[in-house]
Amino acid sequence: MDRIYNFSAGPSMLPLEVLQKAQKELVCYKDCGMSVMEMSHRSKDFEEIIFGAEDTLRELMDIPSEYAVLFLQGGASLQFAMAPLNLMRSYHAADFVNTGQWSKKAISEASRYGVANVVASSEDAMFNYIPDLNEDIFNTEVDYTYLTLNNTIYGTHIPNENLPNIPGVPLVGDMSSNILGEAYDIKKFGLVFAGAQKNLGQAGVTIVIVHKSLIGNHMDITPTMLQYSTHEKERSLYNTPPTYAIYFAGLVFDWVKQLGGVGEMQKLNEEKAAVLYDFLDNSQLFKGTVVKKDRSLMNIPFVLPTDELNAEFLKQASASGFANLKGHRSVGGMRASIYNAMPIEGVKALVELMGKFEITHK
Amino acid sequence: MDRIYNFSAGPSMLPLEVLQKAQKELVCYKDCGMSVMEMSHRSKDFEEIIFGAEDTLRELMDIPSEYAVLFLQGGASLQFAMAPLNLMRSYHAADFVNTGQWSKKAISEASRYGVANVVASSEDAMFNYIPDLNEDIFNTEVDYTYLTLNNTIYGTHIPNENLPNIPGVPLVGDMSSNILGEAYDIKKFGLVFAGAQKNLGQAGVTIVIVHKSLIGNHMDITPTMLQYSTHEKERSLYNTPPTYAIYFAGLVFDWVKQLGGVGEMQKLNEEKAAVLYDFLDNSQLFKGTVVKKDRSLMNIPFVLPTDELNAEFLKQASASGFANLKGHRSVGGMRASIYNAMPIEGVKALVELMGKFEITHK
Repeated sequence: MDRIYNFSAGPSMLPLEVLQKAQKELVCYKDCGMSVMEMSHRSKDFEEIIFGAEDTLRELMDIPSEYAVLFLQGGASLQFAMAPLNLMRSYHAADFVNTGQWSKKAISEASRYGVANVVASSEDAMFNYIPDLNEDIFNTEVDYTYLTLNNTIYGTHIPNENLPNIPGVPLVGDMSSNILGEAYDIKKFGLVFAGAQKNLGQAGVTIVIVHKSLIGNHMDITPTMLQYSTHEKERSLYNTPPTYAIYFAGLVFDWVKQLGGVGEMQKLNEEKAAVLYDFLDNSQLFKGTVVKKDRSLMNIPFVLPTDELNAEFLKQASASGFANLKGHRSVGGMRASIYNAMPIEGVKALVELMGKFEITHK
Repeated sequence: MDRIYNFSAGPSMLPLEVLQKAQKELVCYKDCGMSVMEMSHRSKDFEEIIFGAEDTLRELMDIPSEYAVLFLQGGASLQFAMAPLNLMRSYHAADFVNTGQWSKKAISEASRYGVANVVASSEDAMFNYIPDLNEDIFNTEVDYTYLTLNNTIYGTHIPNENLPNIPGVPLVGDMSSNILGEAYDIKKFGLVFAGAQKNLGQAGVTIVIVHKSLIGNHMDITPTMLQYSTHEKERSLYNTPPTYAIYFAGLVFDWVKQLGGVGEMQKLNEEKAAVLYDFLDNSQLFKGTVVKKDRSLMNIPFVLPTDELNAEFLKQASASGFANLKGHRSVGGMRASIYNAMPIEGVKALVELMGKFEITHK
């Protein structure tokens, strides 16, 4: 079957070139006589893969040597516990901005290990905007300030230029759905984490970028595997890491580098998103759900005037080879997730379909 | 390059047929128009994959419905914490048999959350045997009894018929390196876990089989992601699971089923191991390191009389296309890991090489 345009929020579309490269060397990697999956994680060949991936990511995101780059497991959901267990050590408290379901999960988990202050929230409008992040709202006597940088479900984001700067308080960012999709100055953060299954490859590996000064002061109750220090000491080789997912992420890093890096990816993503947002802004029928200034480059939710029309459009889209456009149940309607690997042709084809639908349903 | 015989202790050799099938459908799975890696974990296609894999594993291991089968992350190392956090609830204590490095890690982690009684140990002889598991040595006022069922480093195992039966005390077994390699009666256990990277596929997914009566009574400090109940409720879909590793494990389960199931695998493994053990028992030069009655079917350590000979043999083996035969540093010499996917031809070829080496070094 032909490849289809897959608008899934994650796991999601991956670059065809990367899939093809992985396919080619799946049974036998280079001249190793074995698959990457069969390599000892202590072998020279695998060390080249994991340390090479780390080097490329450091280059792409301009990560200084004062930060550790870790390849872990468990997704953002496990980081919701690891962040407080490792960082909530002086004030036993952290500030959170509640911008949706993922922030709420992070708040709920952190509040089991300390005080989680919700200093701002957009829940009053079904998270269709990012609250004002004026520095006055934040506390300084907390162990960290926590932000979800891109909200997959609601389609909002906090770009680099809007990050608050709270003197003496490390910033923690969940970058799961926009890492390598838009540029951030990593030096503004104490800790950044991201599950791989949106912009980095396959589910099963979680990237953690953490300032070394925040490592090694975890709570006593922290399981060994949940201590950042365990993994920093062993360069992510304390136990067997998800070797194939790390290899695959390395291929994706190479792909981003070949395309010109994160700045170039962001430009492409802005062009892609503009195609859809421009259509939505001019449509009489389709409507974006997010306040303009806070629109995500990655996830674009939109609705039709009635549930019946939503259902009809989704049926047509699916029949035309556009997969996974159904919106999250809490927003309804549609959601187009257009991560790095979604080509602009996919977005244009979607907009064409929407245009036709509008003409026949005016 | 040709495929080589890979004797790695894990990640390790995988069935060529399975690698080829995965390769064929890597870019496009069936008529889905996308890779398995790109599928939403909430999609019907992926549900078929994960629930299908669960069904096959239940069939292969004859797992009753009173047990949950979970696909988690973090390897056995994370289970070393999850077992006590979830199970050490009435007596705040458990019994351990120390049969090597993995048992020691499990003991060390459990002792952070309760009392870890070491009721028997073979450390006095560098773990080259399994202590007598007479039921008298075990306590009954503990939350569980813990065994490492196969010891990758030292080459010992505890077969099904030697499992102790301690009335009222759940048995916990680390089956990481012999799951699906030899048959166990799962009803003898309360909890079994296994990292996938030896007999089940690629690193990054951990199989947990747990009696439902042991779920839901975790300690308050347990992170949500480390509670068995979290994953049981959502059938391993609480958050994004390692989708591709689960798919691949499902392919391996199918392969075992096609070969006749676990009983048949065990027979093949006994034949394979006998080829090497028979040679060792008759050799004047090579020597197995493990007491006969406790020899593993999966990992076979052996030594030559001097470090120089060990090094020379390893050099010859490597040049002849036998990879990863170097023994663990704590045992020295050689170790042949011959999991399910190692064909008997590989073991015979190794023995042939050893025979030639013996003739030229008498």
